[in-house]
Amino acid sequence: MCEANVFLLEPDGEELLLLDAVDKVVPLEQDKIYLENIYGERKTVRARIKEMHLVEHRIILE
Amino acid sequence: MCEANVFLLEPDGEELLLLDAVDKVVPLEQDKIYLENIYGERKTVRARIKEMHLVEHRIILE
Repeated sequence: MCEANVFLLEPDGEELLLLDAVDKVVPLEQDKIYLENIYGERKTVRARIKEMHLVEHRIILE
Repeated sequence: MCEANVFLLEPDGEELLLLDAVDKVVPLEQDKIYLENIYGERKTVRARIKEMHLVEHRIILE
């Protein structure tokens, strides 16, 4: 499966895991992002996409 | 490998393949997006991310 783990980059440089095994990512209005993983878990976070490395299964938000 | 194909959604609803086998996606300033695939091909396009379905290997820009 080709889902990714979504991390939030914190001001101190730490990466906080927001949701694992994410399939669906949809940017919404006002810098919000909707995430849905393969287990049906859903989160909407206020952040923007910083970078994605799909081969490493990593999506970094900030 | 878990790269994705990146499509641009055109006004008529057609999806134009911009780059296949994309590993790295980095949003830049002014609604530009940098794409890099596993073959080292790189593109910067003026668009924003509409939605991503990683399990289907699809990223849709608009």
